[in-house]
Amino acid sequence: MSVSLIILAAGQGSRMQSDMPKVLHPLAQVPLVVHAMRAGRALDPDHVVVVVGHGAAQVAAVVQAEDDRAQVVTQDQQLGTAHAVAQARPALEGVGGDVVVLYGDTPFISEDTLHALRDARATHDVVVLGFHADDPGRYGRLITQGDQLERIVEFKDATDKERDITLCNSGVICAGRAQIFELVEKIGNDNAAGEYYLTDIVARARAAGLSAGVVICPEGETLGINTRAELAAAESAFQARARAQALENGVAMQAPDTVIFAQDTVIGCDSIIEPYVVFGPGVSVEGGATIRAFSHLEGAHVSRGAVVGPYARLRPGAELAEDVRVGNFVEIKNATLDEGAKVNHLSYVGDAHVGARANLGAGTVTCNYDGVFKHHTNIGEGAFIGSSTMLVAPVSVGAHAMTGSGSVITSDVPDGALALGRARQDTKPGLGKRLMDRLRAAKAAGVKG
Amino acid sequence: MSVSLIILAAGQGSRMQSDMPKVLHPLAQVPLVVHAMRAGRALDPDHVVVVVGHGAAQVAAVVQAEDDRAQVVTQDQQLGTAHAVAQARPALEGVGGDVVVLYGDTPFISEDTLHALRDARATHDVVVLGFHADDPGRYGRLITQGDQLERIVEFKDATDKERDITLCNSGVICAGRAQIFELVEKIGNDNAAGEYYLTDIVARARAAGLSAGVVICPEGETLGINTRAELAAAESAFQARARAQALENGVAMQAPDTVIFAQDTVIGCDSIIEPYVVFGPGVSVEGGATIRAFSHLEGAHVSRGAVVGPYARLRPGAELAEDVRVGNFVEIKNATLDEGAKVNHLSYVGDAHVGARANLGAGTVTCNYDGVFKHHTNIGEGAFIGSSTMLVAPVSVGAHAMTGSGSVITSDVPDGALALGRARQDTKPGLGKRLMDRLRAAKAAGVKG
Amino acid sequence: MSVSLIILAAGQGSRMQSDMPKVLHPLAQVPLVVHAMRAGRALDPDHVVVVVGHGAAQVAAVVQAEDDRAQVVTQDQQLGTAHAVAQARPALEGVGGDVVVLYGDTPFISEDTLHALRDARATHDVVVLGFHADDPGRYGRLITQGDQLERIVEFKDATDKERDITLCNSGVICAGRAQIFELVEKIGNDNAAGEYYLTDIVARARAAGLSAGVVICPEGETLGINTRAELAAAESAFQARARAQALENGVAMQAPDTVIFAQDTVIGCDSIIEPYVVFGPGVSVEGGATIRAFSHLEGAHVSRGAVVGPYARLRPGAELAEDVRVGNFVEIKNATLDEGAKVNHLSYVGDAHVGARANLGAGTVTCNYDGVFKHHTNIGEGAFIGSSTMLVAPVSVGAHAMTGSGSVITSDVPDGALALGRARQDTKPGLGKRLMDRLRAAKAAGVKG
Repeated sequence: MSVSLIILAAGQGSRMQSDMPKVLHPLAQVPLVVHAMRAGRALDPDHVVVVVGHGAAQVAAVVQAEDDRAQVVTQDQQLGTAHAVAQARPALEGVGGDVVVLYGDTPFISEDTLHALRDARATHDVVVLGFHADDPGRYGRLITQGDQLERIVEFKDATDKERDITLCNSGVICAGRAQIFELVEKIGNDNAAGEYYLTDIVARARAAGLSAGVVICPEGETLGINTRAELAAAESAFQARARAQALENGVAMQAPDTVIFAQDTVIGCDSIIEPYVVFGPGVSVEGGATIRAFSHLEGAHVSRGAVVGPYARLRPGAELAEDVRVGNFVEIKNATLDEGAKVNHLSYVGDAHVGARANLGAGTVTCNYDGVFKHHTNIGEGAFIGSSTMLVAPVSVGAHAMTGSGSVITSDVPDGALALGRARQDTKPGLGKRLMDRLRAAKAAGVKG
Repeated sequence: MSVSLIILAAGQGSRMQSDMPKVLHPLAQVPLVVHAMRAGRALDPDHVVVVVGHGAAQVAAVVQAEDDRAQVVTQDQQLGTAHAVAQARPALEGVGGDVVVLYGDTPFISEDTLHALRDARATHDVVVLGFHADDPGRYGRLITQGDQLERIVEFKDATDKERDITLCNSGVICAGRAQIFELVEKIGNDNAAGEYYLTDIVARARAAGLSAGVVICPEGETLGINTRAELAAAESAFQARARAQALENGVAMQAPDTVIFAQDTVIGCDSIIEPYVVFGPGVSVEGGATIRAFSHLEGAHVSRGAVVGPYARLRPGAELAEDVRVGNFVEIKNATLDEGAKVNHLSYVGDAHVGARANLGAGTVTCNYDGVFKHHTNIGEGAFIGSSTMLVAPVSVGAHAMTGSGSVITSDVPDGALALGRARQDTKPGLGKRLMDRLRAAKAAGVKG
Repeated sequence: MSVSLIILAAGQGSRMQSDMPKVLHPLAQVPLVVHAMRAGRALDPDHVVVVVGHGAAQVAAVVQAEDDRAQVVTQDQQLGTAHAVAQARPALEGVGGDVVVLYGDTPFISEDTLHALRDARATHDVVVLGFHADDPGRYGRLITQGDQLERIVEFKDATDKERDITLCNSGVICAGRAQIFELVEKIGNDNAAGEYYLTDIVARARAAGLSAGVVICPEGETLGINTRAELAAAESAFQARARAQALENGVAMQAPDTVIFAQDTVIGCDSIIEPYVVFGPGVSVEGGATIRAFSHLEGAHVSRGAVVGPYARLRPGAELAEDVRVGNFVEIKNATLDEGAKVNHLSYVGDAHVGARANLGAGTVTCNYDGVFKHHTNIGEGAFIGSSTMLVAPVSVGAHAMTGSGSVITSDVPDGALALGRARQDTKPGLGKRLMDRLRAAKAAGVKG
């Protein structure tokens, strides 16, 4: 049976103290709403409808970039969660199957939980996701009888006895497409805030003689983000899980607590990740590779046997083949380094291809930008680039060619050639000391620099 | 009514295992004694007297640098806290109002607490700052009756019942200028250590028929530093508060626990501080700026829309205007970068002015030091500096001028000009490969490098 | 009386999820087996026998590199700990005194504990090292009567009453050389796993009328490593101790939790270690030196008054004399820097000697590698190396000599001389702007870079 997702992502999140809509704040370097979308993907949904409101255009752009088949509908006024769900009705006109309602600020819901929700639909018309709260505080309580969910009672309306219940409402629900919008239409706004609460769907369902049930998940999965401190706590929880998982997968980390993962980081078994490494989005590191301390990677691939860092920065499009070495204070951007290539010190390699076993000396720069356009540099297999060579792109250095250190290379260098571009050394005896003596005398005489 | 501060800062702090006087050890990058001075400033004191002893000259220098109106008096022999306070008497001759005694190794006392101390003077002649200790241990206990402080009893002299009291003595007191020195004069040194304890002022006051009272503050405010481990714990407490405050102010931090603040760091709302950023003293970052990972800032200002790092170092005098970009492995010192200027890679910009939208290529160096003097570099608006350009200061590159990569610029470049300083490329076919073959043959023949 | 060590290091450690033998995984940057060897050295053993199995050649190489007098014997089949010990018999033929059995995956056993084990031999034939477990779980329990160890009972064979015992078996034992192998020979493999357990030695000893005793150590000392998570926890315990010890020794650290020590790091009193510093093996830092943030040191010595970093990388063979300055984005490898030498920015100094008070400008590179051989660079006392000077080794710059910035130095520079190797600056009025205008026009016309 097909399933549709409705993801509520219209809130402003004023407690974040930010001009950015709440669901765009990043967790593990990915916007919150994208976490919800990726979580929901576990159900292989036929339709994904995201309800946006505050910062609608910004949120819509992020949603579409993540999934161009997702439909975005706008809730112009924030009149409550039931009202938000109702906005999705036109987008799901004529669609059958189940509907699952998720939240753009609730990133941690698991695949198992989502499947359990759907499975529970076999016996219930409406299924609510609940959790046992360590500190139930002001959460709504789930009042059950046998396997039936009788109703959801808000904290402020609960009796003392009801407040003793620790089974709380996560807000996530699953119901049939045929019924969910009918039930939602019946929800009123006769409450202090004058809002339409999706929570009321249970009362509407029971009143209509339908069955409601509960699926219980660990509290951590229902964690919603309302403040930056909560976001930081969620990030911390994500990182702890990612680190533990990496250790379990056979990744060597001397100080796992200092390695920062992104949501999509992939690291192979028996790779080594030294302390203080930051992974941005889109990084994969094969087993047997080493990422040394103080390295920063984004959108990069590192192959088996490669050694990166310390202090290496791999930017998007960095593709390192087997046994490549990228050393300290080196930046690689949009460049492929073939097997065994080495860029060990203080270099910038951007918009380039570096052949196998080529060696780039300290201070090599691919001068890829002329102020307006970006140009490509090609370095052949086994080439030897002398220190502080400026490769003024577009330019090509042939296989097994060599450049003299300090050269500015503006014309292509054929295979096997040596290219030099530097002035002859001129040594003036005694002049160094005389110049310095003169400066010191000037200083002694009170001259300022 | 006017208030005077006496800050006791004479101790050696032998448990710090350091040649440096204890009160000069930095917390949040500021010496402990300066924390006490800044805390005391909340009372807007007319007179600040700092009593120094160990490392008197060093401490005095730091005190005067922080506040040139502070008076420094020397306690030649460390004969106890009452003796230390007595040294301040000449400096406060003829001064009226209240006196508050603070400690150079107690950095966290709050503004509210200090005001409460003074307010309590309306009803008491002597006011002592107390706290409820989680673990009272060997602290002196405050024995009260109603709102009167009867006496302070040292742990070793306390009965079992008195030891059950958790209200402890912080050592901070407030009293009238007219009485404090008279009372202090009466304190004797008839104890095991032969020292004059300020604590005894309460007994002296009560004996003289005066009223003594207690103001209670959270234990954390009275934290004194005696060992490096305690200093580290205090630093940790400071950082935790600074991070929480920044989150509350709307600063985005993926990993707040990895961001290190100084006492005076100012960060605007909706700025982004990535992991592993260290703030030294004197940094302000406007809202909407981004400080990327592994950056280090001291004495710098970063404006809205600017992006700094990763791996950027801003040293004192770095002034970045709106939308400036300072990228990886770049050091900026005593330099102003106007709106939209870019220094993206591997550069040193010191003693310089960089015009709006100027672009400095990778490996740019302002050669500001001739071995004796420092010189200034000026780069005009919209200038394009080729990679690895050496700007030998004093030198000026005009607006919209350009330099060829690898050039050494020793003469001023007019607006709109192109300056080149490099040798023609000379390409020798086949020579690169022949040279390398020869080296490999030598190695094969057993030659050592 | 002489002592011999048997260190069991044959296990695969399949739970590590690694191709590397378990005992080679590094803790505090030193392989686990080396920790065991160094711990055992406290007993000044006459003979060290390491029993290897999985990855025998790799483990043997590490063992021999640490101690070339250690004997390595191979256990071809892993038939249990008693079987492993038996493999050491030939290597200890004719040797008298005591034998202590340690484990290659148990790094934290203390000197005091080892001495206590040997001391207990005065009253017992066999001594077992026990510990009181916080959570005894499935550990074997030590059943004692008075000062006699009656037997060791495995958890699965233990009665409920025996399971209440918290005194557990660490596996470490000490016995006389004359008896240990005889007892081990008697151990059978009549158990579920069909393995020969060293644990059974107690039962064999008691059956033979010998005396067995227990020495108790803190649980932390017996920590064995079976998973990467346990390794990470052990590393964390090591670092916590190393940081506390450094603070106690008078090292200043603003954020000790961010400083990563190696097993052999030595830091002097009143040195300053800023946040985010990583020490690899073989580093010593004298008192009064400063290691600034984001620095990475391996195999380096830093003398009093030197300042390193931020973002400095010292590689093996870096030897910094008093008051040397190594600044940001600088790499030093196999190089000696004499008193007061300065390399402040963006430089690579490898295979070099830098004289006292020499100053190397930003972007200096010792071009030490010609593609096959490494060559040496010598820089004289007081020399001044201009920014972006390429020193093409082998080359020598004399005392008080100077190089112009942007020069490529291929010939030796005599004392006091000035060497320049750069083209004259050529300035073409208006050309910079014209070039840029042309590029912009091309872009406007739709040309792609």
